Amino acid sequence: MTALTRFRLVLEYDGGPFVGWQRQDNGPSIQGALEEAAKRLSGVETVAVAAGRTDAGVHALGMTAHLDLPSRFDADTVRDALNFHLKPKPVAVIEAREAPPDFHARFSATARHYLYRIVNRRAPLALDAGRAWRVGPSLDETAMAAAAAFLVGRHDFTTFRAAQCQSASPVKTLSSISVLRSGERVEIRAAAPSFLHHQVRSMAGTLCEVGLGRWRPEDVKAALEARDRARCGPVAPPEGLYFVAADYANSR
Amino acid sequence: MTALTRFRLVLEYDGGPFVGWQRQDNGPSIQGALEEAAKRLSGVETVAVAAGRTDAGVHALGMTAHLDLPSRFDADTVRDALNFHLKPKPVAVIEAREAPPDFHARFSATARHYLYRIVNRRAPLALDAGRAWRVGPSLDETAMAAAAAFLVGRHDFTTFRAAQCQSASPVKTLSSISVLRSGERVEIRAAAPSFLHHQVRSMAGTLCEVGLGRWRPEDVKAALEARDRARCGPVAPPEGLYFVAADYANSR
Repeated sequence: MTALTRFRLVLEYDGGPFVGWQRQDNGPSIQGALEEAAKRLSGVETVAVAAGRTDAGVHALGMTAHLDLPSRFDADTVRDALNFHLKPKPVAVIEAREAPPDFHARFSATARHYLYRIVNRRAPLALDAGRAWRVGPSLDETAMAAAAAFLVGRHDFTTFRAAQCQSASPVKTLSSISVLRSGERVEIRAAAPSFLHHQVRSMAGTLCEVGLGRWRPEDVKAALEARDRARCGPVAPPEGLYFVAADYANSR
Repeated sequence: MTALTRFRLVLEYDGGPFVGWQRQDNGPSIQGALEEAAKRLSGVETVAVAAGRTDAGVHALGMTAHLDLPSRFDADTVRDALNFHLKPKPVAVIEAREAPPDFHARFSATARHYLYRIVNRRAPLALDAGRAWRVGPSLDETAMAAAAAFLVGRHDFTTFRAAQCQSASPVKTLSSISVLRSGERVEIRAAAPSFLHHQVRSMAGTLCEVGLGRWRPEDVKAALEARDRARCGPVAPPEGLYFVAADYANSR
């Protein structure tokens, strides 16, 4: 029996070519790519667990994951060898370190941080194609920020929850959400201990309705309070969404 | 005979799939893509001229170009129709406006601005693949900035000039150059009335030698003063280079 060590990884990936984090029958997944690279390195099967199970097309700047590998590998070798075996897939191990055996990328995470990137311009995206959501008409980011403020705190987020969401409860605590413009870029950042399925994209799409002047900020409050999925605005597309980082009791 | 109007365009493009700005026999060019889109719009041949003839793999955030089109088109139609016909190529017309007939994107430009993007980390690039130069060992950006300062001003830049450069003289004035780090990103920004062929990439590659500790900042001064191409450091790869903007007497 080989002694195993738990490794904690931070991953960057382009979600474009993947069906999402989770291994599925209908195409390549980030989890599958990582497990395959780990098997090529160690020769043994391992299961990779991530802080967040991102959907098809959703990116990660710093996704925390864990997996178990034979103890003969040190952390730097794990990072470099996984990167070697991941090539040419757009998944990179930014960091690898040994973790205690009870560290769990998903269950130990105390907070998740997401970024939703919008490019607010009429022209199509050349450099940011697949990396942001282009919204043509001018967005009023001040109104969006005012609307976003209604979402902060502990609420029943049924309105912003996908039908297929597997969370036990629709009640979640949104720790913070901001809407900031820099030139043609409008960025929405959200942090919470955990999110419902499609919650960030549902909030981002709804906030854009406010930005476009179709909704007033107070309409977002009313939609939240209605606890009715039918009251949600359009769900923003996956290519604008980035999993930024997960927090853990000790550190990121 | 159709009356023609000169249009001034600002373009964003991903240089990755192109042989460069200029029309060539060996593959698709940005100029060719634009001229083809213009022909589909107007039915007549036109020649597109850009402020800078970027090399294969070099990107643009705001390349100014001009072309002549039948006067029946207004500027907004030109922008939207060119974008329509450019699809799915990664070239976008950010802006189009009417220009006087003597406006010339290349000869009227008073300054050019370039950005060279480095990601300074060991892990490969997942999201920025083809969009930045990854340098693994730690770069000392303070030393790079000190070295860069020697390049500012009017100099014979023979050391930083490609053999195939067609400029009449190797004497150019570098208006400004900066090296700034933000986390793992190191950005070199350079502005000049005009640049020699491969000048920015030659300077960027040489500055990285300083950043890696292989050269002292003063070695860059000595290399410049030697006016000897053999004294240049390695030329940085094209995928990190962005044409940011051109200036004109009135405005960008």
